[in-house]
Amino acid sequence: MPETAHESRPHPLQGVKVVDLGQIYNGPYATFLMAMAGADVIKVEPREGESLRVRGAVGTGKLPFAMLNSNKRCITLNLKSQRGRGLLIDLVRRADVLLENFAPDTMERLGLPAELLLAENPRLIYASGSGYGRSGPKRDYLAMDLTVQAVAGIMSVTGYPEGPPLKAGVALCDFLGGVHLYGAIVTALYEREKTGCGRVVEVAMLEAAYVTLASNLGLFHGSGGKAPPRTGNRHGGLSMAPYNVYPAADGHVAIIVVGEEHWRQLLRAMGRADLLDDPRFADNKARVAHIAQVDALIENWTRGLPRERIFELTKQFRVPSAPVRDLVEVVNDEHMHGRGMLKRIEHPELGPIVVPTTAMRFHGTPQMEIVPSGRLGQYTAEVLQAELGLDDAEIAALRRDQVI
Amino acid sequence: MPETAHESRPHPLQGVKVVDLGQIYNGPYATFLMAMAGADVIKVEPREGESLRVRGAVGTGKLPFAMLNSNKRCITLNLKSQRGRGLLIDLVRRADVLLENFAPDTMERLGLPAELLLAENPRLIYASGSGYGRSGPKRDYLAMDLTVQAVAGIMSVTGYPEGPPLKAGVALCDFLGGVHLYGAIVTALYEREKTGCGRVVEVAMLEAAYVTLASNLGLFHGSGGKAPPRTGNRHGGLSMAPYNVYPAADGHVAIIVVGEEHWRQLLRAMGRADLLDDPRFADNKARVAHIAQVDALIENWTRGLPRERIFELTKQFRVPSAPVRDLVEVVNDEHMHGRGMLKRIEHPELGPIVVPTTAMRFHGTPQMEIVPSGRLGQYTAEVLQAELGLDDAEIAALRRDQVI
Repeated sequence: MPETAHESRPHPLQGVKVVDLGQIYNGPYATFLMAMAGADVIKVEPREGESLRVRGAVGTGKLPFAMLNSNKRCITLNLKSQRGRGLLIDLVRRADVLLENFAPDTMERLGLPAELLLAENPRLIYASGSGYGRSGPKRDYLAMDLTVQAVAGIMSVTGYPEGPPLKAGVALCDFLGGVHLYGAIVTALYEREKTGCGRVVEVAMLEAAYVTLASNLGLFHGSGGKAPPRTGNRHGGLSMAPYNVYPAADGHVAIIVVGEEHWRQLLRAMGRADLLDDPRFADNKARVAHIAQVDALIENWTRGLPRERIFELTKQFRVPSAPVRDLVEVVNDEHMHGRGMLKRIEHPELGPIVVPTTAMRFHGTPQMEIVPSGRLGQYTAEVLQAELGLDDAEIAALRRDQVI
Repeated sequence: MPETAHESRPHPLQGVKVVDLGQIYNGPYATFLMAMAGADVIKVEPREGESLRVRGAVGTGKLPFAMLNSNKRCITLNLKSQRGRGLLIDLVRRADVLLENFAPDTMERLGLPAELLLAENPRLIYASGSGYGRSGPKRDYLAMDLTVQAVAGIMSVTGYPEGPPLKAGVALCDFLGGVHLYGAIVTALYEREKTGCGRVVEVAMLEAAYVTLASNLGLFHGSGGKAPPRTGNRHGGLSMAPYNVYPAADGHVAIIVVGEEHWRQLLRAMGRADLLDDPRFADNKARVAHIAQVDALIENWTRGLPRERIFELTKQFRVPSAPVRDLVEVVNDEHMHGRGMLKRIEHPELGPIVVPTTAMRFHGTPQMEIVPSGRLGQYTAEVLQAELGLDDAEIAALRRDQVI
């Protein structure tokens, strides 16, 4: 592409310093995106490690931890000790951003409220990720991705009409929260270039999830305010057809028709040009009214063909479609590897693994090289020396006193 | 909250001007977030309206359109006419951002490639949202939320192990793409304060969705690279228990135990302190090994109680939990209304509706007042006069010539 011919500009967040108290998915994703855009992220963990690192020690959290903590400098600090808090404040004085996604009021209980940190550094962006937000009647409710999917209405529209509510199989609320928090932080950084002032920014996962219900809310509104049903793989607003996942001879294929030309082309791809003038399928409204017949017609065609053959045909006829892929296929996707979104790395603890870079592309700048996620406390001495000027004896004393 | 006591600062993106060619969900969500942060968004539609507006005219797209297009100035421009393209370029010369999420190569076919627009305005951020990105072997594939859910692996991990792959009931790929694009744009705006230069930024929905698979990829990695199964409402990595949705007497409740104290407290909430020392449930690893018994134990308790009673008890005992709510409950949530995330407005075309503001909160600035989404072309004359200095006669001629 012409616009990427000269890849020589620095990373856009070069020079931005982040003190990252993030844990599990939400906060760490925001700071991961910052690291991938060039920021210097100091990941501050308790001496036992943050929750996801601890979980990784006994279960399947190892790869998620590695995915989200590349290119951060991991240090330990015991924030329950006065000296630990003091060191954190020293780091914050030199930082542009502090991020936390603790349970409500944790920072206050640690004696590190936002007001204190902003008083120490008026240019600071204090970024808070939470389930329900820093105000309102539910601010103190505990939240994890699962509970937010429940309370945000996502489960009520996932699954089949005759089955129970179901979660999306991915941690969408955690990551929606994290990327919105990234957006809020960078917005405040932009503003600070004009005003010189930092501020508190926050994102509640519940609120970040709301807008994803748009199609379902369309049906809610169109039906006069009734709770919309679960629709399986059909459109959440039940207002488009075809829009479904169809069984192939060896898997499944998603097919969607957005405009009338797509429908005509799909009929041609299926060898059913005889139906071009069928009034049951004359336009989207007619097809929605005959949705079972539309789906049966397509399924009759897809059942007999391999997934890739269906995809090739729909592609050739310019109908939006995709094979349903499993994670072995996704992790090895030549397209994402070719674009540099996914990287095969040799991780010092996990061996050969695939990790993501960032979905945010800045043309004209080479992609960030991956530095594998660090061991617990790997950079503690380096950061305390380089950032705060501590000497070896002081660092030894901090270790002895269980501050780091 | 102390940090919001003085709400007097301007909106952080005040003064930023956006030319928005976005359509449906992905692009319009990015520019909606910009409008909510104070940017001036000029929404440029074809003379018949963008796809979501057209869909709204016949189906359930009315509310989604209203949700995503508050506080934008809607104008029409026929980009297939030379004069229309000329006016777009005139707008771009005065703008900070141009956003598009057309099918691949549409801007090139219109004669409006990124290089041309950046040559006209070197400070421009050219923002491109797509399914697969601007490079790589699959760049020309058509994509919609449904097909991205298929190809990104999300369907493969949603639903039950014995059932077919299932989509998440919400349009998560569209909105993940949109909010990542917002992040990329604002990052480039921040950088431009240092460099004076714009650039092309892009986000592919496929890539924006990848990281949400973190738990599932943990299981993939932990099992030596096998495609993980669908797990219903259990943890996507099958590495936490309890983690499920349980039937109540009148609905469902999600319950999750993150640490050992949560488990002990849940037993107390259930009146089952007799199991505190049961070796089957001694720690998370043991509970995962006895996951069916853990779930049966909790379900025996939840089945007999109303949803809200279960939630009250778990809240009292500090166990993360939430009722599974339907959209009537979500739309009327007192918490999101109290925080100003949701607003009841009188929409000139739709009457009384609920619309979202933004999940990005900037403490110290009052929330944006909602201006309801505009009619097709509502601001065309105003924008062309104020921005480009056209007079009434010129605007009449443009209408006559079907340019606007």
